[in-house]
Amino acid sequence: MKKYLAEMIGTMVLVLMGCGAAVFAGAGQPFDPVGTLGVAFAFGLSVVAMAYTIGSISGCHINPAITLGVLLTGRMSGKDAGLYIVFQIIGAILGSAILWFLAKESGSTTTLTGANGFAEGQMAQAFVAETIFTFIFVLVVLGVTAKNGLNKFAGLAIGLALVLVHIVCIPITGTSVNPARSIGPAIFQGGAALAQLWVFIVAPFLGAVIAAFVWKGITVENEMETT
Amino acid sequence: MKKYLAEMIGTMVLVLMGCGAAVFAGAGQPFDPVGTLGVAFAFGLSVVAMAYTIGSISGCHINPAITLGVLLTGRMSGKDAGLYIVFQIIGAILGSAILWFLAKESGSTTTLTGANGFAEGQMAQAFVAETIFTFIFVLVVLGVTAKNGLNKFAGLAIGLALVLVHIVCIPITGTSVNPARSIGPAIFQGGAALAQLWVFIVAPFLGAVIAAFVWKGITVENEMETT
Amino acid sequence: MKKYLAEMIGTMVLVLMGCGAAVFAGAGQPFDPVGTLGVAFAFGLSVVAMAYTIGSISGCHINPAITLGVLLTGRMSGKDAGLYIVFQIIGAILGSAILWFLAKESGSTTTLTGANGFAEGQMAQAFVAETIFTFIFVLVVLGVTAKNGLNKFAGLAIGLALVLVHIVCIPITGTSVNPARSIGPAIFQGGAALAQLWVFIVAPFLGAVIAAFVWKGITVENEMETT
Amino acid sequence: MKKYLAEMIGTMVLVLMGCGAAVFAGAGQPFDPVGTLGVAFAFGLSVVAMAYTIGSISGCHINPAITLGVLLTGRMSGKDAGLYIVFQIIGAILGSAILWFLAKESGSTTTLTGANGFAEGQMAQAFVAETIFTFIFVLVVLGVTAKNGLNKFAGLAIGLALVLVHIVCIPITGTSVNPARSIGPAIFQGGAALAQLWVFIVAPFLGAVIAAFVWKGITVENEMETT
Repeated sequence: MKKYLAEMIGTMVLVLMGCGAAVFAGAGQPFDPVGTLGVAFAFGLSVVAMAYTIGSISGCHINPAITLGVLLTGRMSGKDAGLYIVFQIIGAILGSAILWFLAKESGSTTTLTGANGFAEGQMAQAFVAETIFTFIFVLVVLGVTAKNGLNKFAGLAIGLALVLVHIVCIPITGTSVNPARSIGPAIFQGGAALAQLWVFIVAPFLGAVIAAFVWKGITVENEMETT
Repeated sequence: MKKYLAEMIGTMVLVLMGCGAAVFAGAGQPFDPVGTLGVAFAFGLSVVAMAYTIGSISGCHINPAITLGVLLTGRMSGKDAGLYIVFQIIGAILGSAILWFLAKESGSTTTLTGANGFAEGQMAQAFVAETIFTFIFVLVVLGVTAKNGLNKFAGLAIGLALVLVHIVCIPITGTSVNPARSIGPAIFQGGAALAQLWVFIVAPFLGAVIAAFVWKGITVENEMETT
Repeated sequence: MKKYLAEMIGTMVLVLMGCGAAVFAGAGQPFDPVGTLGVAFAFGLSVVAMAYTIGSISGCHINPAITLGVLLTGRMSGKDAGLYIVFQIIGAILGSAILWFLAKESGSTTTLTGANGFAEGQMAQAFVAETIFTFIFVLVVLGVTAKNGLNKFAGLAIGLALVLVHIVCIPITGTSVNPARSIGPAIFQGGAALAQLWVFIVAPFLGAVIAAFVWKGITVENEMETT
Repeated sequence: MKKYLAEMIGTMVLVLMGCGAAVFAGAGQPFDPVGTLGVAFAFGLSVVAMAYTIGSISGCHINPAITLGVLLTGRMSGKDAGLYIVFQIIGAILGSAILWFLAKESGSTTTLTGANGFAEGQMAQAFVAETIFTFIFVLVVLGVTAKNGLNKFAGLAIGLALVLVHIVCIPITGTSVNPARSIGPAIFQGGAALAQLWVFIVAPFLGAVIAAFVWKGITVENEMETT
């Protein structure tokens, strides 16, 4: 039962730390701000830290798109997947609430919530980017956590893959690839963030479906060859 | 007996290198300064380096908040915890003394000691930030070093978690999450650093208490389910 | 059979993410751009991510120079090597095609494809650099994946070696050390990128040949001593 | 016999890549230069890459100070130590020669060789810094490679410790902690680099002696307690 609480805490940490880095990456720092690379590391290292903390309790999905991918490859029940996603979203909202308190006087020059978004007329680009980058990210998760995979390295490999995705995608959408991570900040940001939110729910789920499909394609035939 | 010396050396390295990076992150460098991201890596990589060096001798706490968390989860004796903390503080003061000698002619434009602090009127924000970020950090330590954890990865995961905490928290307080790391520089800095020091002792200890409580909550019920 | 598809997907990810970081490292970002260091991490972390995802399927070469080095040390058949290279090139072209769609309205101030190149009169420098850096990179691959090596760390060590090579070589040629990675963008870039493309095919292959030769020299005598 | 060649190649790579990053960290890059943090990663990742490549052949010292520390803790013969150091110096000179060819038209605004040095009147600071940082670095090496250590993580932990040392020490001396790494560039740089070279030979060796002494002190008594 407490695996749901673990998912809630993990997603809270991801949103608080990742979006927190974004809030403080703009200005008002004693030293040069961390910039895009620092925000990318904040999201990825949140996954590394949580994977080795709660991984043995819940598997550390902390992302509804990953939960969907794991469900579609037959590794968890539909009931569990649904409860995972609910608690992930609760955790994301908690993370955004804490960040809201910490950030409200930060004097950030870029964002106060780390909400995702895209410029006008760039919806197609944003949708394709979120779909493809989630596909890549969930493919890594499915590959790294497969039975013949190197499970002890999973947290590190998946976290570094999320750093990678953020390096490329922050300039496009701020990088979601995780519906819960978008829902939390959008609630506190409102406006365009809420209006565009559907993109950051639909596209990541679509990317996860493609990843599950491609992964099955690569591995089923491979397993047949080995046999 | 020499595990106390190991804690002293480890904390000395953490304070010398982490705060040293902060002192030199401002100006007077041949290349672009390392900035906030470089200071974050310096603190985290100090933990990685020391964990694989003295980990088998003392467990490499090098942080009184971690020692408190480990004590509260019943993994060490009260006497050992007390001596760990004493030697950690001695090590931190040694680290600050060495840095003081190296930095006094550095022409740093930001800090000469790497002391923690917060702007006037931001005490509540600083206290909450230090409490929450220490909670997250100590939770990672307790999770990663649990029996069913992946102990060989502990040094890496905990060190990278400390990088993460610094990326987000440097703009708020410079990041303590470690009373010893704050005491050393405050002694050499004096003034506001000494006046604000209590925050960087009380809040990290509070965060550690919460982490021990939450970790017990998550794992006890989890163990019951497994049984 | 699907190991070829795995190589195709892996090389697609490498080119999309690595060159994608280069396209977005210039301007138009919410925060400070990732710069040369961020592009270096994007290429290296692509290898880390793919190594732990498809490594157990194809070995995750995703680079014709690596495939040549592996072939020359007698670890794979000539037919397999040829098919690996064909599918790597197809993957690289796919990656460039996706990036072309995402980047065409990015307002990048430096590059729209991440194609490799060198300034006029610097061909000798570029050729020598690509040869030596590929030699180093393929030597790492051959050493890390040798039988008495530490295979579980292979993905991490090889990926971080690629970060290293990019840190040094981006200012010289943008860093190829991988013919497929150069072919994809050159097709979409045209002009000088196509005219200079031969350097980024011949020099990496030459570096791989030297690496295979040096590795055999170091290890054969070493094995004899052990015997 | 070929372990000496492995040391030569490893040190060549360290000097070429680490100093190469320094040469190109100043100007003339397509993107933001890598700066101090990028140079720090170049030196550290060179060690990571070489450790997993030649570690099983020679132990991958690629640093006379490490060889001295290993000798003083009784883990290698004096003859081997002498030959290691000779081949390390040859490798460093080779690395500097290659870099000299690549860099001579680079238009670097900071350094053309990556030679170590210090400002006038700062000799005491430089000497103390090199001694202390080499002490820390060699202590990590001795701890990580001890019998009860975690050897598979050695390359990663030692490499990241070298990143750490460079983050703090580049603003002071450019960071040697390795006599071979200073000798190679000084030969090509001449002038002040040659005149100051003795500091970067004596101080690192002194630091290594202290590390061997401290490590013995911590572990001998520790082993007695365990018995």
